[in-house]
Amino acid sequence: MKNVLGREIPEELLVEGQEVFQGQYYRDGYVYTKSAPTVTAHVKPTGDKIVENIREAIVKSGLKDGMTISFHHHLRDGDYIVNMVMKEIHKLGIKDLFVCASSLGKAHNYLVPCIEDGTVTGISTSGIRDEIGEAVSAGKLKNLAYIRTHGGRARAIEDGTVKIDVAFLGAPTSDSYGNASGKGGKSDCGVLSYVDGDAKYADKVVIITDTLVETPNFPASIQGVDVDFVVLVDSIGDPSKIASGVLRLTKDTRELNMAETVAKCMYHSGYFKNGFTFQTGAGGPSLATTVFLKKYMDQENIKCRWAMGGITEPIVNLFKEGYINKVINDQAFDLAAVASVHTDPNHFEISASQYANPFNKGAFVNQLDFVILGALEIDVDYNVNVVQGTTGILQGAPGGHTDTSAGAKVSIIVAPLIRSRLATVRTEVTSVTTPGESIDIVVTDYGVAVNPKRQDLLDAFKETDIPLKTIEELRDLAYQYAGEPEKIEFEDKVVAMIEYRDGTIIDVVRKPKQLN
Amino acid sequence: MKNVLGREIPEELLVEGQEVFQGQYYRDGYVYTKSAPTVTAHVKPTGDKIVENIREAIVKSGLKDGMTISFHHHLRDGDYIVNMVMKEIHKLGIKDLFVCASSLGKAHNYLVPCIEDGTVTGISTSGIRDEIGEAVSAGKLKNLAYIRTHGGRARAIEDGTVKIDVAFLGAPTSDSYGNASGKGGKSDCGVLSYVDGDAKYADKVVIITDTLVETPNFPASIQGVDVDFVVLVDSIGDPSKIASGVLRLTKDTRELNMAETVAKCMYHSGYFKNGFTFQTGAGGPSLATTVFLKKYMDQENIKCRWAMGGITEPIVNLFKEGYINKVINDQAFDLAAVASVHTDPNHFEISASQYANPFNKGAFVNQLDFVILGALEIDVDYNVNVVQGTTGILQGAPGGHTDTSAGAKVSIIVAPLIRSRLATVRTEVTSVTTPGESIDIVVTDYGVAVNPKRQDLLDAFKETDIPLKTIEELRDLAYQYAGEPEKIEFEDKVVAMIEYRDGTIIDVVRKPKQLN
Repeated sequence: MKNVLGREIPEELLVEGQEVFQGQYYRDGYVYTKSAPTVTAHVKPTGDKIVENIREAIVKSGLKDGMTISFHHHLRDGDYIVNMVMKEIHKLGIKDLFVCASSLGKAHNYLVPCIEDGTVTGISTSGIRDEIGEAVSAGKLKNLAYIRTHGGRARAIEDGTVKIDVAFLGAPTSDSYGNASGKGGKSDCGVLSYVDGDAKYADKVVIITDTLVETPNFPASIQGVDVDFVVLVDSIGDPSKIASGVLRLTKDTRELNMAETVAKCMYHSGYFKNGFTFQTGAGGPSLATTVFLKKYMDQENIKCRWAMGGITEPIVNLFKEGYINKVINDQAFDLAAVASVHTDPNHFEISASQYANPFNKGAFVNQLDFVILGALEIDVDYNVNVVQGTTGILQGAPGGHTDTSAGAKVSIIVAPLIRSRLATVRTEVTSVTTPGESIDIVVTDYGVAVNPKRQDLLDAFKETDIPLKTIEELRDLAYQYAGEPEKIEFEDKVVAMIEYRDGTIIDVVRKPKQLN
Repeated sequence: MKNVLGREIPEELLVEGQEVFQGQYYRDGYVYTKSAPTVTAHVKPTGDKIVENIREAIVKSGLKDGMTISFHHHLRDGDYIVNMVMKEIHKLGIKDLFVCASSLGKAHNYLVPCIEDGTVTGISTSGIRDEIGEAVSAGKLKNLAYIRTHGGRARAIEDGTVKIDVAFLGAPTSDSYGNASGKGGKSDCGVLSYVDGDAKYADKVVIITDTLVETPNFPASIQGVDVDFVVLVDSIGDPSKIASGVLRLTKDTRELNMAETVAKCMYHSGYFKNGFTFQTGAGGPSLATTVFLKKYMDQENIKCRWAMGGITEPIVNLFKEGYINKVINDQAFDLAAVASVHTDPNHFEISASQYANPFNKGAFVNQLDFVILGALEIDVDYNVNVVQGTTGILQGAPGGHTDTSAGAKVSIIVAPLIRSRLATVRTEVTSVTTPGESIDIVVTDYGVAVNPKRQDLLDAFKETDIPLKTIEELRDLAYQYAGEPEKIEFEDKVVAMIEYRDGTIIDVVRKPKQLN
């Protein structure tokens, strides 16, 4: 069957009650009863929760074939947790596990042999990169992979779509009762935003830390009252890979020009007022926007009420210079963000649910004025793909892309018209991650297209020097310079479902023929 | 039927699945699935959550006859919320409500006419004082009242014993999305510990504030993602009654002597070591203990790792002088506590569940070394009554009494042997709030009794000058000076159930004949 975007979704792949995508606000007002964990009451005071090692935690948790386990990715490319835990599970011979990860990347490649021998048969994740992306694209995972946004994962846990049996949560610091934090220790990752649902909704919760501190380890991102076991290991990650030292601002003139255009669009949008709110992605032109914003903020003598998102040094700098009043952090992308969330009382950690879950009583994305995002591909209906690479192999991550663009008053995509000699703006995207109705403006190095549904923005930009084009004109330009992209050949086999943040299926990912 | 303490519990009053008290750790290891709210998804960004007034919030919440509403008591004797909300409910003619309050006192007397005309037909509370205590004691409430400890209430909400339909939560500050805090504003109460369960488990949550602040109001005790409506009113309370200015340390020699004995018992107990943890009640001799503790801490050159509980100025002073490393606050009893929890980074707010819920994975009471508590009556089995006054009328509150004494390694009751010419230590208590097995030491002005089950303490005190007596000797002394207390005459009618923290029934309260 086709969903509202015309994407073909094989009906037999839908689980009971699952629908195909019907529009970004289709499930607004949906009434449901939240999921809840099955827990064991600790009435009697029994000392701490420390167990000998990961193996003992797995055994005591009661993990069995067919269960669901979860991980977070705040330790990013430096993460040791997933591989450490999967190796012990492997040794124990437990099979047929569903892995609910907040994101997967090259630090988690031990999942590949686990996928190949049936230890892991299902995956839910935002990012799916590197060898895991290839393995899943090649159809090696027994069951379907589910690509979820950060808000969609929080929703899936809270609404019971995913029931986590055992959460294995790395924590830079913990006390012996499981009050755990992303702050401090030798593997400092700043925040633990994505674990809030895991800790509160999983039946069993295991904290794995390399830095045990005195009780109470407050403020704690994970509360000890939700934790069953604490494991002390030598190291939970490689600090040099947890946060990149500095995400340098681009010096590429083309990127700087695009960034300047983005800032100009914001300035002229009608929403650039004192107290505005925004989020930028961590890509080159998104980040560079902050520099140009400053100019307009000085000019208008206005301040940003808060900036949100995966936080980077340019945002921290604007904050420290007084341009931004508060920072709301769901992920620390670099050392500056890690350092600031420790020390500045106006820099706050929030949970993934607070950030972006569409099914709570109003996530922070709903309060965004602007979001600036990247794209791998954009089609003439403004649909965006950030999940499948140009070869059709899984390599990206929706992250908060779909969540923020649905919530923000003005959502801006910034991307070069041509990337690696391929058209970014095209007639059709390989797969849809974010629906076009969520996207208001596309800024490229060859012009700016405004979604026709935003007549207000078209009017606002009329008398400016913003180089307006239609999205079709941008596509035609791209095809003129780079040629019409060749169609990737896919098999019928679906390897992954792209779940919209509300649980409906917005697209599917099929196995590329080249992987045969 | 009789429970394990020999208290008669009419079987017909037990609801399905309810058991009578079987021992303090009877339900250790109990496995259950938590309750969960039914919520409405706010997928679409729709601006703020502000409604015109309390009446509109009630109407929009869908409140109907027979539902359960909830309140907290952090505004203490200055609270305007309960009366404001009940007056509007009264006007709307909604009947047969169950009121789940964290505690009720003289600020809530508008509940009395509501009880009398059937607007309110059921109550769950810790404290039940003043006119409400009299009305319930007189049997005016249509259904049974349930007396719950702070931990017991958190448990009842989390395990689904109480299902809150609409929570009406006063907040000193809130933003327009419902991120609410006990800090700041003109009705500052410091913390909002008791509302955590209400906000997370109620279907509908209404924040009532008199100080609206810019979004995000972080750090927030109540997260906006759990809030449906925000009401701005002129005033949520009388600041002069919210926190008492100063809880003065007693100058009464008798009380000071008892306090010194308590400190001496702690010192000799074997648990007075560097890094010990403790909680004291807010009564005269409990509070005064802090002064004498200091002497012993200096002498041994040790520090307290953390102090917990309802926090008062003497605790804040010890903290500021460096005797206590961290303070864990579930209630701010005075202005010093309110001020400190705002400003000191080592003074932390915790939820009622973190504090004392026996059914989570280990509450903080389980980590207490010492707790020092008061009592209205103590019997020769060490059972304590803190709920029924000497006339049999409901007037006290279990608060955290039962929770902390079950968790602490050494729980100490301090009370004068005779109070208002009546024996405190007696053969039988009017009703049992806290079982004797949870009580280790009873300190009076006429000697100290140690529960025989604590042979370790009896041994530890042997060579000291602690004036040891048996509990029967204390009782006999009390009877010698004050006479044997006259038996209060009760009707058969049960007006309230005293629920042990784990949900079993430890005792019942009957209607005193004098109230006929």
